[in-house]
Amino acid sequence: MKHYLPVLLLFFTLSACAQQPYQNAQLSIDERVADLLSKMTVEEKVMQMRIFHANKGIKIDDAGNLSLEGDTKERLRLGIAGIKNPGEHNDPVAAAKGNNALQKYIIENNRFGIPALFVTESYNGVDAEGCTKFGRPITSAASFNPELTHRQWLVVGNEARLRGMHMCHSPEADVVRDPRFGRMSEAFGEDTYLVKENVVAAITGVQGNYDGLGKGTHIGAVAKHFAGYGQVLGGTNFAAIEISERTLIDEIFPPFEAAVKEARTLGIMASHGDLNGVASHANPWLLTEVLRKQWGFKGYTVSDANDIGRLFYFMGVAETPEDAALLGLRAGMDVDLYADDAYSLLPGLAKKMPEIMTYIDRSAGHVLRTKMILGLFENPYIDVRETERRVRMTSSLALAREADEESIVLLKNDNKALPISKSTAKKIALLGPILRETSLEQFQKIAPGVEFVAEQGFRLTDEQRAVPKVNENTDAALDKLVGIARTADVNILFLGGDEHTAKEGFFNNALGDRASIDPVGPQDELLRRVKALGKPTIVVFTHRRTLSINGFDEHADAILDGWDLSEFGDEAMAKMIFGDANPSGKCPSTVPRHIGQLPFHYSGKRINNKKGYLFMENGPLYPFGHGLSYTSFDYSNARVSAPTLTVPGMITASVKVTNTGSMAGKEVVQLYLTDEIGSVTRPAKELKAFKKILLQPGETKTVSFKITPEMLAFTRLDMTKGVETGDYTILLGTSSAEGETVKFRLIAD
Amino acid sequence: MKHYLPVLLLFFTLSACAQQPYQNAQLSIDERVADLLSKMTVEEKVMQMRIFHANKGIKIDDAGNLSLEGDTKERLRLGIAGIKNPGEHNDPVAAAKGNNALQKYIIENNRFGIPALFVTESYNGVDAEGCTKFGRPITSAASFNPELTHRQWLVVGNEARLRGMHMCHSPEADVVRDPRFGRMSEAFGEDTYLVKENVVAAITGVQGNYDGLGKGTHIGAVAKHFAGYGQVLGGTNFAAIEISERTLIDEIFPPFEAAVKEARTLGIMASHGDLNGVASHANPWLLTEVLRKQWGFKGYTVSDANDIGRLFYFMGVAETPEDAALLGLRAGMDVDLYADDAYSLLPGLAKKMPEIMTYIDRSAGHVLRTKMILGLFENPYIDVRETERRVRMTSSLALAREADEESIVLLKNDNKALPISKSTAKKIALLGPILRETSLEQFQKIAPGVEFVAEQGFRLTDEQRAVPKVNENTDAALDKLVGIARTADVNILFLGGDEHTAKEGFFNNALGDRASIDPVGPQDELLRRVKALGKPTIVVFTHRRTLSINGFDEHADAILDGWDLSEFGDEAMAKMIFGDANPSGKCPSTVPRHIGQLPFHYSGKRINNKKGYLFMENGPLYPFGHGLSYTSFDYSNARVSAPTLTVPGMITASVKVTNTGSMAGKEVVQLYLTDEIGSVTRPAKELKAFKKILLQPGETKTVSFKITPEMLAFTRLDMTKGVETGDYTILLGTSSAEGETVKFRLIAD
Repeated sequence: MKHYLPVLLLFFTLSACAQQPYQNAQLSIDERVADLLSKMTVEEKVMQMRIFHANKGIKIDDAGNLSLEGDTKERLRLGIAGIKNPGEHNDPVAAAKGNNALQKYIIENNRFGIPALFVTESYNGVDAEGCTKFGRPITSAASFNPELTHRQWLVVGNEARLRGMHMCHSPEADVVRDPRFGRMSEAFGEDTYLVKENVVAAITGVQGNYDGLGKGTHIGAVAKHFAGYGQVLGGTNFAAIEISERTLIDEIFPPFEAAVKEARTLGIMASHGDLNGVASHANPWLLTEVLRKQWGFKGYTVSDANDIGRLFYFMGVAETPEDAALLGLRAGMDVDLYADDAYSLLPGLAKKMPEIMTYIDRSAGHVLRTKMILGLFENPYIDVRETERRVRMTSSLALAREADEESIVLLKNDNKALPISKSTAKKIALLGPILRETSLEQFQKIAPGVEFVAEQGFRLTDEQRAVPKVNENTDAALDKLVGIARTADVNILFLGGDEHTAKEGFFNNALGDRASIDPVGPQDELLRRVKALGKPTIVVFTHRRTLSINGFDEHADAILDGWDLSEFGDEAMAKMIFGDANPSGKCPSTVPRHIGQLPFHYSGKRINNKKGYLFMENGPLYPFGHGLSYTSFDYSNARVSAPTLTVPGMITASVKVTNTGSMAGKEVVQLYLTDEIGSVTRPAKELKAFKKILLQPGETKTVSFKITPEMLAFTRLDMTKGVETGDYTILLGTSSAEGETVKFRLIAD
Repeated sequence: MKHYLPVLLLFFTLSACAQQPYQNAQLSIDERVADLLSKMTVEEKVMQMRIFHANKGIKIDDAGNLSLEGDTKERLRLGIAGIKNPGEHNDPVAAAKGNNALQKYIIENNRFGIPALFVTESYNGVDAEGCTKFGRPITSAASFNPELTHRQWLVVGNEARLRGMHMCHSPEADVVRDPRFGRMSEAFGEDTYLVKENVVAAITGVQGNYDGLGKGTHIGAVAKHFAGYGQVLGGTNFAAIEISERTLIDEIFPPFEAAVKEARTLGIMASHGDLNGVASHANPWLLTEVLRKQWGFKGYTVSDANDIGRLFYFMGVAETPEDAALLGLRAGMDVDLYADDAYSLLPGLAKKMPEIMTYIDRSAGHVLRTKMILGLFENPYIDVRETERRVRMTSSLALAREADEESIVLLKNDNKALPISKSTAKKIALLGPILRETSLEQFQKIAPGVEFVAEQGFRLTDEQRAVPKVNENTDAALDKLVGIARTADVNILFLGGDEHTAKEGFFNNALGDRASIDPVGPQDELLRRVKALGKPTIVVFTHRRTLSINGFDEHADAILDGWDLSEFGDEAMAKMIFGDANPSGKCPSTVPRHIGQLPFHYSGKRINNKKGYLFMENGPLYPFGHGLSYTSFDYSNARVSAPTLTVPGMITASVKVTNTGSMAGKEVVQLYLTDEIGSVTRPAKELKAFKKILLQPGETKTVSFKITPEMLAFTRLDMTKGVETGDYTILLGTSSAEGETVKFRLIAD
């Protein structure tokens, strides 16, 4: 036996020498991070606080071969927090190969072998070539089915990791109530609770919390934009944000708080703008007090693109780039995204101001910690065979289709214009500016026996500009479309907005916000002329912001609202039109009659809703939560298990829902609460729970919801959060405007 | 001599017995109030906290005879804080007589002979029969001449007191930035400084601070609506208000703070709505902490109509009417206007809760103190001979004309379309819906040699409803108007809004706010058709809210904007049109191109102004401070007396302005400051001073402004108010968008 002893000794000695504490996965992450930081120079630490974009010299070819151009190698020699979008234009396998090579280069070329985070975005699927494209978040919100959202983001996390990515700058946890804002479709609608449920579903999905986070099959989420980004003044990107602390805490924070406390998001991104004058990238109250001290956030905060540098050159709150870097650092901003003019200055500043090392250690530590949670020190590479097998799986594509079918909202359906019988409608015209190249084939697939004719006629935008109605070609196109419509039995008009009429508005030469929410171009005119032919006229409505579609409502027999569906969207629309599927989506945002009604969300203060405007009907065109079905649902017997709810305690509210029509259908049963009297003015009502149920014709289900005091908490007169005893009204309904009510009283124990 | 002694003794004895301390004007007001309160019952005290409307049974006939009907005598038997609008429908002399009789009845029928405050409103002259009618406050603001505002309100105070009134629920100190709001014309525009200057001018005018307040020739002001009323969400009356504390302090409070500290207003009225959730009538921070402790307010606070009761039945912040009364009382609300369901409950509550007597004494004391300041215990009656002599004096009517001429804004004047020669234009048509019955005669008076034809054609509203354009009569009217226009040499179109298209919106059946700011009805069509005739086409623009007049701008040769002028308004318009006067008004509010640009004021954060919207031109149609003249002004040689301003210290900024045209004219030289870098995001620019000067043709004046650190103070990152050193840019200009710039640096001593 004795000859083994030296060998074993040698093994243990080598092992002890080779593996330093930060490399030892058996130690706690805190110990590992502390060890690593103790060994790093300030230059190396600051590199763990910077993310570059791959377009700065990182190239991957079709075979997955990596090349590093320009000064990229110099940029990477001290390590790097992360790289944005490496391989985004490659197919998944080439991306995986190239990213493995990139990771290997980075690990082997910094002293401690620290891996990098590869970062993507993923609001409707991984933002890269060859991945499954789902509907946008606003479409997911319309499904009122967070479990479905969760399953989509599970696929997103998986497909991203299979490309070699580790983080995504998604989801948006912003409550967006201004349809002028070009990014409306990237978030989950106007309602705090609906956004929160979807954000938790998305983060736990993409992070695979239920499926082994840290085991290398998912990625970390970055919830954004903290905080108030959905409330930019005038609806324009980069504008100031004015919002009272009470509203912020009660209506804007909850999705972020849940992202941290429930979904354990690994990252948080700050908002471009300010918040009541304080730049969000330099706001210690937001980034440190609320996020870390109140909520216990352990991940890292990352700037929106260039926004730390922008504290100097755009926001006007820093005298110099150095001041900008110090403002961000001290406030709690860990990672500088893209900029070469902000955190790049920190090593120099640290020489003169050694006291800032505490902040640098804090921020670099947050990033290193995240890399360890993701297991990157142990498993930095992806198994490319898995990439080949598991991206765009049949089940993932089926899920995109399933989500579309659950998300489409039937806004109106006069005289049961829908569904259309495949046998009686011989010829159907698909017309209008939002018609896609693939629309015709997707319709033909669903109804092969029907003769379809498809004609876009005119486009809304041309190189990002509106085509003016006075354009003679547009007039000719209208005539042509009406001519085709005259020959059809049924006309389906593809209306709404295209990809240029609502998008992220960066700067003056790349606008995306609008001052009007009327449909662009002569869409109303087209619809009016087609409807005048006296034939069934259906609108397929695709859009990325809420539009005030009074004209559509007036002239269409039926409107199917899909917002922005998956790559298979028109297939789902065709199934709806021919009754192969039954709509069950609900409006995730109030549809106003006029932009002048803004701000207009159903949960505004009760005192707002008592008056209207001169010369127009009061109220929304379609209320939040509205959505019809081909069958009908009857609500009855709303009741509470007890007339009083004690603190602490719980009661149950229930309602009977019966399918009184002749088709199976899903219904979203919604529960809204109204606090009749508060120490502060209270919302008209607030969504607090919902359940989506399937009912066969004639079937009745009793739907029950727990009511707990926690659901009734708000920021009271004294700024503490809690409940107030008194009377509450429950609305159990098919929308925020229609249903059965029942009352209860909250009492102290 | 000896026989005189008993008589003298008797006199002194009787005198000592008859005059109690509160009646002794030689004592301090604090002593007098304390004495009176010590003798009053709680019921009597609470009556000093209630104001009734005279329409509850107080009748004055044409001869000034008073009759008290219904339960009025019962209501008055314990005294009363005040009566609203007694004699409002009587001519001034009858009102004075009747009010003297009413005051006498009240004094003689309460134990202590406490007189009542008779209260009116007066935003454009005393709101009663037979008084001088000036232009509305927004019109005054357009004059950029607070000294002129002051002189108008001196007349208002005088005419009100001569009717027997003692207080007015005016002026509005609200900063109104939302043209949807129906009450826009009742306030002084969008800019904090412009509002503040006019509010101080109005209060010191109406109170006659420079003319003997307390000597019985003026009345007390009630600045309103505290606070934030101009920022109602969605622009609808009674809606919630969301505004950060920093913005509130820096942009909304200053006119109120100046009303208290500079103008010594005797009253403050609270705002209908809430403020970040807290009902303004139950907000101790606003009503006690800020108003009294920070600013030293000594007068009384009064509710807006019924708003204390409304805490219960409308705002949802009180469980019972009793709670509503207690909330208002404790917060610092002294007087309950109109309601029978709020402070009427206080005597009963005081029996059960003796601790509230402190608050009742406080509030009743504020009212009694005000009556003593006004000298009402000593001089409760008005000399009716003075009323006969001094209401609607020739000088007052001349002042109304002078104010009109200083307020009209020349928005555009293409190719010097204006002025029009009285000799070359033989026939002029006065056309359109805003034409008044007196317009023709006022034009004829100014240009007796011209042939005028006048035709209104159609009205915008009929019993408060818009006349729809599809109305056949409107089409016929358009044809008729165009037919008349065809026969004229010059067409003057009277366009804008009438008294129903913008007004105080009370409830659902009395709306006044709008969701659109487009002109109502077929006004654009009328203008386009008239302009197509190829003749000079002038728009006389009258309105009570900002309208987005893109159509007027496109088709009119010239636009004269009067907002809402005095009873002699068309005379001033005629003088402008024929060159008898030269416009010198400036826009008191930004004119947007589209309602979707809201909120849109020139002093918004700099970061807001960098981007625009898709499919439209960026920026305003007309910027704040814009206004042309028939002559032209050249700005040059902008300079500062020193490149640095030390704290404390002062420098001077100056600019040369030359009249380069051929007509004498007035110009408003405006000074805006931009803080280049702040600890918080800063406004694009802020008006800090202006001077209106008269220049003869060829004349040059150097206009100088003092720049002090106080002008640069704002609420900094740490919420303290003060200055920050650094670079500032001064714009010395003819509007907020055009002028000469010069820089300076603020340094610490």
